[in-house]
Amino acid sequence: MRMVDLIEKKRDGHALTKEEISFIINEYTKGNIPDYQMSAFTMAVYFQGMTEQERADLTLAMVHSGDTIDLSKIEGIKVDKHSTGGVGDTTTLVLAPLVAAVGVPVAKMSGRGLGHTGGTIDKLEAVAGFHVEIDNEEFIRLVNKNKVAVIGQSGNLTPADKKLYALRDVTATVNSIPLIASSIMSKKIAAGADAIVLDVKTGAGAFMKDLEEARELAKAMVDIGNNVGRQTMAVISDMSQPLGFAIGNSLEVKEAIDTLRGNGPSDLEELCLTLGSHMVVLAKKATSTEEARSMLKEAISSGKALDTLKLFLSAQGGDASVVDDPSKLPQAKYIVELEAQEAGYVSEIIADSIGTAAMLLGAGRATKESTIDLAVGLELRKKIGDEVAQGESLVTIHSNFENVQEVKDKLYASIKISSNKVEVPPLVYDRILE
Amino acid sequence: MRMVDLIEKKRDGHALTKEEISFIINEYTKGNIPDYQMSAFTMAVYFQGMTEQERADLTLAMVHSGDTIDLSKIEGIKVDKHSTGGVGDTTTLVLAPLVAAVGVPVAKMSGRGLGHTGGTIDKLEAVAGFHVEIDNEEFIRLVNKNKVAVIGQSGNLTPADKKLYALRDVTATVNSIPLIASSIMSKKIAAGADAIVLDVKTGAGAFMKDLEEARELAKAMVDIGNNVGRQTMAVISDMSQPLGFAIGNSLEVKEAIDTLRGNGPSDLEELCLTLGSHMVVLAKKATSTEEARSMLKEAISSGKALDTLKLFLSAQGGDASVVDDPSKLPQAKYIVELEAQEAGYVSEIIADSIGTAAMLLGAGRATKESTIDLAVGLELRKKIGDEVAQGESLVTIHSNFENVQEVKDKLYASIKISSNKVEVPPLVYDRILE
Repeated sequence: MRMVDLIEKKRDGHALTKEEISFIINEYTKGNIPDYQMSAFTMAVYFQGMTEQERADLTLAMVHSGDTIDLSKIEGIKVDKHSTGGVGDTTTLVLAPLVAAVGVPVAKMSGRGLGHTGGTIDKLEAVAGFHVEIDNEEFIRLVNKNKVAVIGQSGNLTPADKKLYALRDVTATVNSIPLIASSIMSKKIAAGADAIVLDVKTGAGAFMKDLEEARELAKAMVDIGNNVGRQTMAVISDMSQPLGFAIGNSLEVKEAIDTLRGNGPSDLEELCLTLGSHMVVLAKKATSTEEARSMLKEAISSGKALDTLKLFLSAQGGDASVVDDPSKLPQAKYIVELEAQEAGYVSEIIADSIGTAAMLLGAGRATKESTIDLAVGLELRKKIGDEVAQGESLVTIHSNFENVQEVKDKLYASIKISSNKVEVPPLVYDRILE
Repeated sequence: MRMVDLIEKKRDGHALTKEEISFIINEYTKGNIPDYQMSAFTMAVYFQGMTEQERADLTLAMVHSGDTIDLSKIEGIKVDKHSTGGVGDTTTLVLAPLVAAVGVPVAKMSGRGLGHTGGTIDKLEAVAGFHVEIDNEEFIRLVNKNKVAVIGQSGNLTPADKKLYALRDVTATVNSIPLIASSIMSKKIAAGADAIVLDVKTGAGAFMKDLEEARELAKAMVDIGNNVGRQTMAVISDMSQPLGFAIGNSLEVKEAIDTLRGNGPSDLEELCLTLGSHMVVLAKKATSTEEARSMLKEAISSGKALDTLKLFLSAQGGDASVVDDPSKLPQAKYIVELEAQEAGYVSEIIADSIGTAAMLLGAGRATKESTIDLAVGLELRKKIGDEVAQGESLVTIHSNFENVQEVKDKLYASIKISSNKVEVPPLVYDRILE
């Protein structure tokens, strides 16, 4: 097999065989196929697409390019959740203890974030003492005992995807549905998930701005999962504004606690119940999403969800007393309100720019080398559709430096106020089951 | 400017500005843009094409990536001819002395060939003593004196094209009209041509198998030439079978001599008169192609064309007596006839395979390191449409080894005989003037 012939085959719109795709991924990972051939190939894929079979073959080839995690010693069906990313997305922090509370095993491998706020591990480290440096045996023991544990990324998972993603990033071939779908799915499958619930975001603050594109990506990932024997479903949810109120690490932990207590923002709670009920069904702990939803609501009202969070935090060295007293979480020095300059209705909250404002405060990493300030961030006081009086607070800014003018300017530019009533965007657009 | 943004712009079907194209070519030549970005870019061009303005800008950017040849000290309009390549194409050997004989200056920079037979320089070296190691000053003096001289390639001409072509070759992006057209035209323009006549081949033995594609390539090159101020026209000619009879270096020199004497194969003579008359008109030595054609015919019948060939050869050290006695050219040891296995009409002569058969004899280079045997080659005895009796010779094989069975097998497989009468394909399909 010669790579140039395979590029030509794809360029001319033909489907590659499983053997051809394995050849490409294996030889590329080993460095025998150079970047310049791979980038020509990915650009050909950008234009010609891939069949359902090719996408499944590509995903498995990337899974097999490196280590895979064996979760077979954990009892039950391991359901993983993946979000395509947005701003202020606290769902993972809520969902892990919530579904664990009804018996779904959550064996989460997580990383540090690059972007608006930290990753799941960064956020959890806002809880004093919490750490993810546990070995595999302990990880499995904890999940079997408490139904939830988080471990840092280890091993050489999907090296083909890592190498390919870095190449796509500099060759304008990121935005290709088959490549995005196989990249995400290969990571979830290598991490050992038996079943997968996807949260595909759409709207101004999401990678997929357009609902139709989001639906296409969701369908592509669901097809891959089901084709390779991992039950998969997707929810398409709104990211035209940040989810919930909090953007920032401590603030999001506090928001997750509030939500598990039943006092969280309604959009965050609703999305967690939606995603969570599908996780419960895929884990075969309920036979319908209605049944699953009542189980989850009961776990919240009974305090079981909060108790599971406490168990989870203390099992990994964390100070679980923050759950009852969130003021123990890192606090910022300066609290500044962003006052509305005019009265009206909030018509737009550009999620991307809000995220950038949080990063300016230090809540996120601009580069891998940046350090995160866990205390800082933003709390939205108004969401799209809310009425606001002049001088009323739109956002509470939590900062560790006094002069937040740049952040304020950024926020004013990101929040639009209209004199007319504004409709609240839907939270969930669609569910893709197969 | 960032290359990734320019790749994206082209990927999305937008036209690049002159500055953007210059940036790409300059930085790529300097090594500041890596191959993996360039190959993604060329694949995007493959799918999205380039506007007429972009093609002209790309051509000039490649011209300016290296040295250019200054032919201004040569009197008259320097007209260059370029063929897109075929099998047994002896036109350059005929045209150079032929148009020089009517006063068109021919300042030819030529190279060694890779493929079925040698390049123009290899062929001319079949004439004992002939050499192209002359300096620039001598070259210009000879063209002004004899109207024709050939010099070996020197200087660093279109390095961007060389680098880009090597990359396209291994990334399945050779076959793109804007890239082929700008590659060819940049080389002709850098070599100092004021005007250009293109011979675009079509048919089974040509790069452009399809007439419509050949027409598109011809139009693309003519547009580029005229957009950058070099008058350009194209002839689209047949390469469904080899041109003329001879394939091999000495054999082609002999065929060129025959043609200049008026005794050459009719298709070769006709194509030379067609291309030549356009060269004469572009050089402003005639006002119409009809007038030019009579001048060229007169040069043949009067012996002026042959005399010009002799002058040209002896001026560069060659033994001009071969013109009157071609048996002085290198001769092969074994002459073997390929006898027809059945009677009928020749219906197909697969030019590509005939070329490969000639290369098997040693007439061409399979790799840059191969050495050429100037004496060997093939003489077609029949062309498409000719009637043939069983046992009659189809091809005369000139070989320096005795066992030519492999060559014979290849030739039998390449020449098809039909029991029905076969129509002779047209020689010239079209002319593209602007």
